[in-house]
Amino acid sequence: MTTLRSDDGYLTLINTFTVDADHAEELLEILDRATTEVLQQQPGFVSANLHLSDDRTRVANYAQWRSRADYEAVFANPAVTDHMRQAAAIAESFDPIVYALRHVHP
Amino acid sequence: MTTLRSDDGYLTLINTFTVDADHAEELLEILDRATTEVLQQQPGFVSANLHLSDDRTRVANYAQWRSRADYEAVFANPAVTDHMRQAAAIAESFDPIVYALRHVHP
Repeated sequence: MTTLRSDDGYLTLINTFTVDADHAEELLEILDRATTEVLQQQPGFVSANLHLSDDRTRVANYAQWRSRADYEAVFANPAVTDHMRQAAAIAESFDPIVYALRHVHP
Repeated sequence: MTTLRSDDGYLTLINTFTVDADHAEELLEILDRATTEVLQQQPGFVSANLHLSDDRTRVANYAQWRSRADYEAVFANPAVTDHMRQAAAIAESFDPIVYALRHVHP
């Protein structure tokens, strides 16, 4: 279970992948495996939440990191960048945006 | 506090607004007020979570609805569509995507 609170100070990454609908399940599986095998073990990992759009042409990862430094550090890990390359090869495009969570209702 | 679970059966809406950085706070305020005054009172509303990007050019709403029928019903409410028009007038664009949550880590 993932919890969202505006006072937790986490960095939120929403990465939206555009994908051919026929490859959506494969992309989900790659991202799921990358999370289990590599990302979860990185310092400052809080959560990853993988979503599939209704039309199966988008996969979104809503991820939380303890801090910006923890998030940025993962890119120095070759195991992480290997998995990112695998995901990028299946996706048509991806758009990682870094956010702060400002308001939570209720 | 919002909780994400892959077995809750909720519909997830991720709506990403592109905005001039100088209007980002105003857009956040409009969305926050729309949630408090109107959306929270709608049947099937579960949560709305408003995010501001680092560069202040994107605002993302991560929202949960109990069911597709509940989500679709809100568009018939003039108070909801009024607030949507206000947000659309401030934003440069917006991209509402409907998802199912498939995997939650940890």
